[in-house]
This record gives sequence, structure tokens and C-alpha cells, in this order.
Amino acid sequence: MQEPDLVIKTRDVMPDGATTLPAEYYVSQAHFDREMERLFAGMWICAGRTEQVTQPGQFFLREVLGESVIVTRAARGGVNAFYNVCRHRGTRLCTEQAGTFAGSIQCPYHSWTYDLDGRLVGAPHMDEVPHFRKEAHPLHRVHTETWDGHVFLNLSRTPEPLAAQLGPLPEKFQPWRMEELRLGRRIVYDVRANWKLIVQNYNECLHCPNLHPALNKLSHYLSGENEPLQGTYMGGRMDLRPGISTLSWDGSCPRAMLPGLSPLDARRVYYYAIFPNMLLSLHPDYMMVHTLWPLAPDRTVNICEWHFHPDETTRPDFDPSDAVEFWDLTNRQDWHVCELSQAGISSRAYTPGPYSNREDLLYAFDRMIVELHGAPPPGARLGGLRA
Amino acid sequence: MQEPDLVIKTRDVMPDGATTLPAEYYVSQAHFDREMERLFAGMWICAGRTEQVTQPGQFFLREVLGESVIVTRAARGGVNAFYNVCRHRGTRLCTEQAGTFAGSIQCPYHSWTYDLDGRLVGAPHMDEVPHFRKEAHPLHRVHTETWDGHVFLNLSRTPEPLAAQLGPLPEKFQPWRMEELRLGRRIVYDVRANWKLIVQNYNECLHCPNLHPALNKLSHYLSGENEPLQGTYMGGRMDLRPGISTLSWDGSCPRAMLPGLSPLDARRVYYYAIFPNMLLSLHPDYMMVHTLWPLAPDRTVNICEWHFHPDETTRPDFDPSDAVEFWDLTNRQDWHVCELSQAGISSRAYTPGPYSNREDLLYAFDRMIVELHGAPPPGARLGGLRA
Amino acid sequence: MQEPDLVIKTRDVMPDGATTLPAEYYVSQAHFDREMERLFAGMWICAGRTEQVTQPGQFFLREVLGESVIVTRAARGGVNAFYNVCRHRGTRLCTEQAGTFAGSIQCPYHSWTYDLDGRLVGAPHMDEVPHFRKEAHPLHRVHTETWDGHVFLNLSRTPEPLAAQLGPLPEKFQPWRMEELRLGRRIVYDVRANWKLIVQNYNECLHCPNLHPALNKLSHYLSGENEPLQGTYMGGRMDLRPGISTLSWDGSCPRAMLPGLSPLDARRVYYYAIFPNMLLSLHPDYMMVHTLWPLAPDRTVNICEWHFHPDETTRPDFDPSDAVEFWDLTNRQDWHVCELSQAGISSRAYTPGPYSNREDLLYAFDRMIVELHGAPPPGARLGGLRA
Repeated sequence: MQEPDLVIKTRDVMPDGATTLPAEYYVSQAHFDREMERLFAGMWICAGRTEQVTQPGQFFLREVLGESVIVTRAARGGVNAFYNVCRHRGTRLCTEQAGTFAGSIQCPYHSWTYDLDGRLVGAPHMDEVPHFRKEAHPLHRVHTETWDGHVFLNLSRTPEPLAAQLGPLPEKFQPWRMEELRLGRRIVYDVRANWKLIVQNYNECLHCPNLHPALNKLSHYLSGENEPLQGTYMGGRMDLRPGISTLSWDGSCPRAMLPGLSPLDARRVYYYAIFPNMLLSLHPDYMMVHTLWPLAPDRTVNICEWHFHPDETTRPDFDPSDAVEFWDLTNRQDWHVCELSQAGISSRAYTPGPYSNREDLLYAFDRMIVELHGAPPPGARLGGLRA
Repeated sequence: MQEPDLVIKTRDVMPDGATTLPAEYYVSQAHFDREMERLFAGMWICAGRTEQVTQPGQFFLREVLGESVIVTRAARGGVNAFYNVCRHRGTRLCTEQAGTFAGSIQCPYHSWTYDLDGRLVGAPHMDEVPHFRKEAHPLHRVHTETWDGHVFLNLSRTPEPLAAQLGPLPEKFQPWRMEELRLGRRIVYDVRANWKLIVQNYNECLHCPNLHPALNKLSHYLSGENEPLQGTYMGGRMDLRPGISTLSWDGSCPRAMLPGLSPLDARRVYYYAIFPNMLLSLHPDYMMVHTLWPLAPDRTVNICEWHFHPDETTRPDFDPSDAVEFWDLTNRQDWHVCELSQAGISSRAYTPGPYSNREDLLYAFDRMIVELHGAPPPGARLGGLRA
Repeated sequence: MQEPDLVIKTRDVMPDGATTLPAEYYVSQAHFDREMERLFAGMWICAGRTEQVTQPGQFFLREVLGESVIVTRAARGGVNAFYNVCRHRGTRLCTEQAGTFAGSIQCPYHSWTYDLDGRLVGAPHMDEVPHFRKEAHPLHRVHTETWDGHVFLNLSRTPEPLAAQLGPLPEKFQPWRMEELRLGRRIVYDVRANWKLIVQNYNECLHCPNLHPALNKLSHYLSGENEPLQGTYMGGRMDLRPGISTLSWDGSCPRAMLPGLSPLDARRVYYYAIFPNMLLSLHPDYMMVHTLWPLAPDRTVNICEWHFHPDETTRPDFDPSDAVEFWDLTNRQDWHVCELSQAGISSRAYTPGPYSNREDLLYAFDRMIVELHGAPPPGARLGGLRA
């Protein structure tokens, strides 16, 4: 296959008055709480990988909105998730971050015991209480679904199916066969910035020449094409420069391409923000996944994982450092500038600034956020003066 | 005396719907503030021992509700307590945690000087101010009383006598001659849990087989008997197992029993929670006292002291480690599980859970707390719909 | 010149009821916010020295009320100050605490570039946005003025001239030729006390015999004279004792007197609090400047600088330790007692206490603060009972 020339797609011109959001969207606790409730507690959030819970009883803990959630493999094979709260006196059941339950989950306080489906199966001395029924006290469940190896959680009581949130993405990204991939490295970042600044930073490369010269050498910042915001996700692709095989320290690739990719996709990197918390970056030979865990209006934990084909991870000399260190550097540059933005936006001097045409996804994302907060549409205040 | 057999007293059956309290009792600042004002500022709180202030001017500081209080021995022999606040410009008078005043208390700022009864006796340059009278500016006093060597403070202006709060306890515990006992060890714990969880944990041993296997070997968790909640205190006793002499690493006792104990009391441990902040644990050969110092809804400083007969503490080879280390381990197990409960109760998934019959004191304590907060009695909302 | 005898000026007698302020002035967030808005954001605050920005592009950052402000020398010679906030997406432009811009200020995120007067001169890709005009997006400016080498900032939109705030002080202190002086040492203190307690501590020496015995040996605490509060400043002078040349470890002075001082001024130390944040202490041979940077009702960063004549600072063996260490000790004694006052005033037991005649400036300062908060004048509540 011949290397394609750099193709620069033009972008639509921004509407007049297309500016960044007012400061309260990034600093107010009320805005934060609303986003947590409507987006993070109301949508499916990516919480891990099925490879973390392959055996019955194998589990990991995930902190979500201040909640500790136990994700575990059921005896009959499904993935279960429970609030880490005993039904007796509310005690946290488990403090190990990951491990394997020996067939049941037992509270350390008074030994109330639950099976792997959350049913209460043991409650010492409660048989002396005539009105007590074990069936009335199962663990509180968190909804789970999986997509191609990704485990999703949903804290709402009656969630939409995950498929409705993902739309066409499962089909679109089927060739990468994500379920087969295996974790190669995980780095956890603690970023002093609003989670939306991280999403916005992820969705434009206008900052790349200045902030990421190394990245810009491998993939031209004007290359590729965006897909308009689709309600629950947005993204786009960028093209590798001629002679570049993947995003790594020097652009070379010591790994095989993922099987099943078309020659075209083997020359591209796809960047998709799947709202609210997943940033999925598909490379020719590996998958990078960021998941965002907001702690406060100005603080977000960001878990970054790199996943590779098992043919690579099982090689005795497997070493993902070329990809991991390239992105770790790029990540840190991004989080630093997100923190600078958070600090500046918090200033009394900050006023919304104009977007360029290359920041089209951000503008669309902002519109979605404004709508989420129930702001009146432009001009709405003009009417309504008369009853 | 022959070792008695294990006697298991049954407990009354819990009323239907006897559950733990809603989360707000453990996490809300408003509830915390109300408890601090009504219980900790409105009742007598145990603050130390008379042996800490035996000589005139000898003092120690105690933090209460964010207040620094000076407890000191008066020139004529009584125990005084003062807010650590100069009447001139409000400066804290004293920062040493304990020591001896040389006859008076002097402010480090402008040398205002008070005698050991809090009277202002020196105020440089104030004689130039015609309307100034020293008698109008004594230290602000905190009420004090003592019970058998325990020093109590009361922050309210016109407290009930301490005797009214203690009821029959002074007579009941007279045989232990607590005033004679001397401090052997003090450990201060910083517990990330609501103070009530510590009180509740103290008042049931249903958790002992699981959480405290060592304790359960010395004293069977179903032994003994509870005394119903008496308004200002609640408690009970547990029996030592046959062959066990006291609560220590191996159940043996290198010390003499306390003089004056009946043979029956020499086989028992009494656990009394004297509201709001004292947990009094009387062993055959020593006294353990916890005092609770809440800092926040989810944080409590817990001072634990072990006191022994002076015949023991004055022995050259006196070593209380067998008792201290046994309880230090047990304490840490308790605080850990209290912290797990605090964390779980803070979850959005937490719902009140059912009490067993062995948690009767907790249920009574909860009723008292609910009443304290002025919650309407059950059914109260049914009426009142019509004016 | 012959050493003058100690002259003790009497002070006016305090009015009946002249007491310190109620606690809320020192602990309430609302009071703090009002003082920050009306005093620190509404008046000129001393922020540094012109010697820190002698060359075009030379800059330093200053934190003011949580704002990061860039102070820099313009190409044509003036001193400019800007909010550290890019007009594009709000990013903080600069994180170095001091340095030199190479002719322009560039945002690290998307390379928006401003000249040293804050004009936007570069904005990549914004030319594709038809409605965009560079002139509409200069850096947000902070007003600056200078007085004899001191750089002042003013966050209000339309400030009074600095001269109006300083009144007769520039003429009064002209003989010290402060602009010529050069920084010899800087120490930053983090004080857990309200900023007003530091101002009050600075304006009376009644505490000196007790708290500062070393200072009192060099300069008698009753010497000198105060100037009544003048609306925007207050201060006074103290006299050196016979045989003492300056305030230093032993009262001797290894430096020449400042040129231009009268023989009388060469025997005096002037202490002026220039509201809201500058404490100017003029010694015969050096200038000490404290600037106050409140962070919270109970926390103030205090930057202390010692400035000397350039004939001294350029000497190869220049060593200001005798003056710096003397004051560093004295400063620490003061901040400690300010922290004790903050702690005591926060007590529920604190009540306003009586001022002595030697605390006349404090009483005047308090009246100004009360007026600032819009408290009704005394007696105002007597009227108004009838409509």
C-alpha cells in the first residue's frame, strides 16, 4: 500500500458568538453535582475489563461518585456489581482493591454472608428475630453490562440498555476485536481540573504543534476527520504520517498490527469520547483507554490503560514501553495544560473566549452540557415577560 | 470459689421494624452540631483524672468542642477549669499541654495575670483607664465536678449536679475505689467514624467471635447481662471463662485483684457507656477508660487510659503491657470496623438494617438519639393534617 | 548630636466601652469576603518593587485574592500588570514565578500571543473565523502605579489615583529615598491569623516588654509618638535608646545611615501601616516592608523584605544578618501571639475586652473596620422603633 498524502479537511465555520462556557460550568459545585447525577449516575460508565473478573468470585473495587462498588464474576458466569455496603449495619464489606472471594462475601463486623449473586445466605442470631427474612436483604445491586471486553456500570435504577448508549460503535469498532486484548500497563493520574476540560482537550489537536511536538511529528495535527457529536459520543480519526507505523517514541512499531484491521485503519488512530467517562483511542497495534473519575469541580482521577493483542503480551520479551512512555509524556502535557485552564477559568477576569473552526467538537459538546443543565435556549428570556 | 458455668441470658425480642438509624444521623453536620450542643455542651463530660492536678497550679489542657480548656488545681484545693482565653484581647493563655503554673496564669501577649481561681490580678497600664475594674474581667469559668477520681466538665451555664447524671453508678462502682487507681498507660486514637458508632460498637459483643477471636476466648460473647438504658448511661457485664483471670494476652493476671471486690465481681468485666463521652470498663485488676472527643460527623478522637492499683504501679517491675496490648489490638479492630461502618453508611445505597435481639442496647440508644433530635414520635405525622 | 532623654508622651484616655471587636470580625467568612472586596480589591495594594522589573519583559507573578497577576515591564518603560488568563480558553499563561518574556507572552496551550502591553498579536487559525478581531481580545489589565520604588496594584475597574490613597506620605518619607534601596533579604511567613490581628499587633508596642525583650532593650516601648489614623494609613515612631544605632542583634550598625536623613530621623524608627496590606518600617539604615496576603479569615501570608542602600548591597562583604535575624525573631514572636489571639477569639467564651490608652491606634482601626462593614453607628438602633 502506498502512503497517502496529507489531506486536510476543512471544518465548518463557527457561528458568530461561538465561545467557551462561562466559568460556573467548571467551578461551581451545583453544576458539578448536576453533571454527576445526570451523566455519571444516569449513564453507563466504563469501569474496567472482563479480564479482571474471569473466575467466579474474582473481584475488583471501583470508586464511583464517592461510592465503593464491588465488581465480581458470578458463579454462573455473569458479571455482577454491588454497593460495598452490608445490609445489617451498613458496614463496608471489602477493603481489598482486588482479589477473589471464596464463594461468598462476608461482612467483617457480624459475619452477615452473601453469595456471589448478592443473596443473603448467613446472618448469625437473626433467626431469633421472628419477623426477619433473609430474602428481604440482598446486597444492593449496581447494573452491569459489557461491550467487547469493557465492563460498564450504571447507578440508575432503571437504565436504558447499554446498546442504546453505544449506538453504532460496537459495529464500527468490531474489527479491533477489543475483547481479545489484554492489559499491558495502567497509570493513574490525579488531575486538578474539571473532567470536561479533559474531554475537550482530548477532542481537538489544534494544541498539538505547540504542546505535543513529538505527537505532531508522527501524526499531523490537521490530518483526519471528525464525526459530529452523536448525543452519547463524539470522535474522529487522525492519520499517521508517511513512514510512521504507530504512536510510539520513534513511530516504529515492534508489534504486529491487530488482526482484522483494514489497510486503511492500520494507518489511522481513532479517538472517541464515549460520554461521560470513556476516552477510547484505537491504534493499529494497541488500544488506549482513559476512564475519568471526577472527585470535585476541579479534580478528576484519570485511569489510563494500554491493551495489546495476547500474541504480544504473552511473548517473553513483551515490552510496551515505546507506546506507554510516548503517551505518558503526552498525557502529562495534556493534564498540565488542563490544570492551567482550570486555574485561569477560576479567575474573576475569565470571560468566555472565541472558538476556532478546529474546535467544532468542543462547541458541540458545550451545547450538550448547557442543555443538560437546563439553561434556557438563546432568546428564551425575551419572551415570557407577559403572563 | 468454683468457676461458674456459662450462663446465656436471653434477650427480649426486637420490636418489628427495629432498625439502625438513617444515614443523616451519622453524616449530617446539622445532626452533629445538635448532638454537640445538647449532649457534649449540655451534659457532664469526663475530661481526666484528679491525679493529673494534685498540686496547686498543676494543670492540663483539654480540647472540647474546639475549645481549649485549662483544668487546674486551685490554691485552696478544688479543681478549677477555665476557657483558655485572655479577657484583654482574647489571646490563648497557655499552649503547654500540661504543667504547673507558678501561682498565677499570665497572658504571653500583654501580661494580664490571673490567680488560680481566675481572678484578674494584674493588667499593665489599665490603671490609666478610669472606668476599668479588674473584678469585671475574671477568666471565663467552665464548671467542674469530680467522681471517684474522674474529673468532669460542663460547658453549660447552669448545669445539673453531676450526681443527677450519674444516678446510682457511684454506689454501684464504689467497690472498685477508682479514685485510688493510677494511670498506667494512655493511647490516643484518631477514628474516622461518628462518635455514636463507637458507643454502639462498645455496647454489643455480637461482633466478638468474628472480629475479636482473642477476646472471645477469654470471655464468651453471649455471657453476662445488660442493664437497660437508664437515660444517662447504659451498660452490662460479661463473665470471664473458667480459668481466665482477667482480660490480657493469655488471660492470666500478674497483678492482685483490686481490694474490695466481691468474689463475683472478680470474675466479671463491667462495660458502661456514661453519656455522652465516657466508656468505663472495670476489670478485676484494672480500670480502662475511653473518652470520646468528636471533631466532625465522621471523626472522633478517642483517648484510652488504663489505670491500676498504686500497689502495682509503684512496683519497680510494673508492666501493664499484658492488659494494654490486649486491648490495643481489640481497640484497633473496633475502630477499623467503625470506620468501615461510617464509610458504608455514607453510601447512597445504605438503608437502615434490622437489629438482632443481641443489639438491644443499641436500639435503646438510637431511640434516645432520635428523641434528642426532636423527631416526631412514630405516627405523629398522621395527625395534624387538619387545623 | 547629644542623645535625647526618653520622652514618654501620654495618650488620650479611651472612651468608656472602648473594647476589641466581636469575634465575627475575625472568624466569619462573610466579614472576610467583604474586607477582601472593599479593601483588598478596592484599594491599592503594595505588590513588589520596581527593581524586580527593570528590563522590558522582565516579570514576576503575584497571587492576589486567589488571582495570579503578571507584573511586567512594558517595551516603552512603564509597569504593566495583567490577569494571568488567556483570552482564548482561559488558560494560565505563565507558571514561572519570575523571569523575562522574550518580547511577548505566549499561551502554552494554543499559542495565542500577546505583546508586553497585552495586545493580542498572534492567534493561530483564528483568521479562518470571519467575525474574529484580535483587537477585541487583549489581556485583562490590572491597574498599576508606583511610589518611590514600590509597585502597587488595584483590582478595581476605575481606581482613585494612588496619590489620593497615600496622601502626605510620599513627601513625609521622601528623605529615605526608598526607590534607591535594593532588596537584601526576603522571608515569607504563613500565619494562622486574621490579617487585622497582624495590623493591630504592628500598631502597638504595649506587648513589647513581655514579648520582645530584645526589642525593648533597643527601643523603649513607651518612647515615640503616634499619628492618628488618617483614613488610609496610621503609624507612629519610636526612638532608639541612647547608644543604640539601629534595630539589630546588638543595636550597633555596620552600615552607613541612609543619606538624606535628618539627625533626628537617624535616631528613630517609623512604623506605618498603609491600608490594606503594607507595613512600612523605616530604620536609620534600612527599610523593612511587610505585605499581607490574606488567604482565609484565619490565615495570612506575610512577605517580609529588608531593603538597603546600594552602597551597602554592592559591597563584597554585604551581610544584612544583624538586622534580618533580629527582626525574624521579633516577627516570629509576633506571629505566634497573633495565632494565639486568633485561636482564643474563635472560642465561644471570647467577649470583647477593654483597650488601654496605649492601644489608641487599634481602637481607631477597629472603628474604620466597623464602618466598612456597614454596621449602624452607635445608638442607631435606639431610633426606628416607631414607624
